[in-house]
Formats: sequence, structure tokens, C-alpha cells
Amino acid sequence: MSGVGIILVSHSKKITDGLKELILEMTGDNVIIESAGGTDDGRLGSSAPLIMESLEACSECKRILIFCDMGSSILSSETAIDLVDSELQEKCTIVDGPIVEGAFVASVQAQITDDVDSILSEVEKLKESAPTL
Amino acid sequence: MSGVGIILVSHSKKITDGLKELILEMTGDNVIIESAGGTDDGRLGSSAPLIMESLEACSECKRILIFCDMGSSILSSETAIDLVDSELQEKCTIVDGPIVEGAFVASVQAQITDDVDSILSEVEKLKESAPTL
Repeated sequence: MSGVGIILVSHSKKITDGLKELILEMTGDNVIIESAGGTDDGRLGSSAPLIMESLEACSECKRILIFCDMGSSILSSETAIDLVDSELQEKCTIVDGPIVEGAFVASVQAQITDDVDSILSEVEKLKESAPTL
Repeated sequence: MSGVGIILVSHSKKITDGLKELILEMTGDNVIIESAGGTDDGRLGSSAPLIMESLEACSECKRILIFCDMGSSILSSETAIDLVDSELQEKCTIVDGPIVEGAFVASVQAQITDDVDSILSEVEKLKESAPTL
């Protein structure tokens, strides 16, 4: 079982595709990242079925962290979690943190640990200062 | 003189292009948004000359708010501000807040006021909860 999967849920597919690309540039293939932004057909919005597909793509991960940009992305993510089986559900955490900075920091941290508390503690620090790069 | 200009500085042009599109979908043409992500030739990174062009495109604005994704985007933005004339420099504020959620909330607020303190106060609230949409 691989470590931590990171799922990106924005209202814009461009944002999550760009963010995935940016994170992979930093982490190589060490972290599993899924871009689940926009609607099923690439328009602005969010899609529970699309997020569900990403959750299932991370089914081999020990834990799954979901980063959202705003309210209805969170709602779609909650719906997606409700729709997958209970074993997968238990792995999922919707993270309270900014999508770009949070997913970036979490991915860097996920390279060195699969301890979710330790990863989330790094995300929490973003309330004090921006990530360095 | 128009109100507040919002400049988006991420390491990824896809992120800032997607974010600009998302914000314009919500605000129509009421807010001036500049996408200044990536390098001059669209690679991952940040570019002071590119940010400088965006600052100059907002020269008619009363104030300019710059949203960055991480440390070196902030450095490039500071360099860009140093390179423009002093009248434009005085209008610029690099915002301490997350790029996607911060620029979104600021743009929505900038539709109803050009008072920067009031806009920044909305961005500050993001430390407590995600924006609704």
C-alpha cells in the first residue's frame, strides 16, 4: 500500500491541472496527486462523480487528503465520499487549508512521512506564513 | 480612475489563467484581474518582468492587490514593484493570504467597495473558514 494520496478539487480544471503539474515538478513521482477540478466535461464547477473517480484511483493509498477551494467543492467532496465504499471512506480527510499552498506543503511533507497528523500540522502553519520555495 | 486591480502570481500560468477565468465568471467585468503566473515563456516559475507588465496594466486603478502562491512569487512581486515608477509603487500591496481563496474573496468584495482595508479584512477571515460559493 502506498502512502498518502492528494486530491485537488477546485471549480477550475485549469487550476487543479496546473497545481498537479507544479507539485509533481517538486516531488517527482513520490506522491500520488489527482486533479479533480471542474465539472465532468471541463466547465467551471465541481463534480461529485469526478471526485469519486479520483478517490477510487487512490484506493491503494493508506490515507487520502482532499484539498478544496471553496464551499461547494467541499460539498461535492463530501458527496463523493458518501458514494464510495466504507473502507475507502475511512481513509478520506477533507483538509481545512488553502488549495494551492496547502496541497503543495502537504505533498512535500508526504514525501518524508505518511503520518497524516504530521502533514496536517504543516498545513496548519500556513495560517501564520506563506510556504517557501 | 477605476477601483481595485487584482494581480495573480503563481508558479503556474495554468493556475492564474484558471483563477482569472473563475473570478471573471463570478464578477463579470466589474473587477480588473491580471494573470501573471509562470515565467515569460509559460514555464513553471515566476517572472518579475511579467508581473511588472501586469502592474502597468493596472496603472489606472486606485489600488492594486497582489496575490502570490509561495515565497519566490512574493520575491518576484517585490522586485516588480521596485521596477515600476513611484506613483504606481504606492498603489501596490502584496496580500498575506492564499492565492485562490484570497483573490476570489477580494474580487467579490472589490465589486462593492474600493476600500482596501475592508477588502483585506474579508481575506483575513479565510484564516477561520473557507469561502462559500
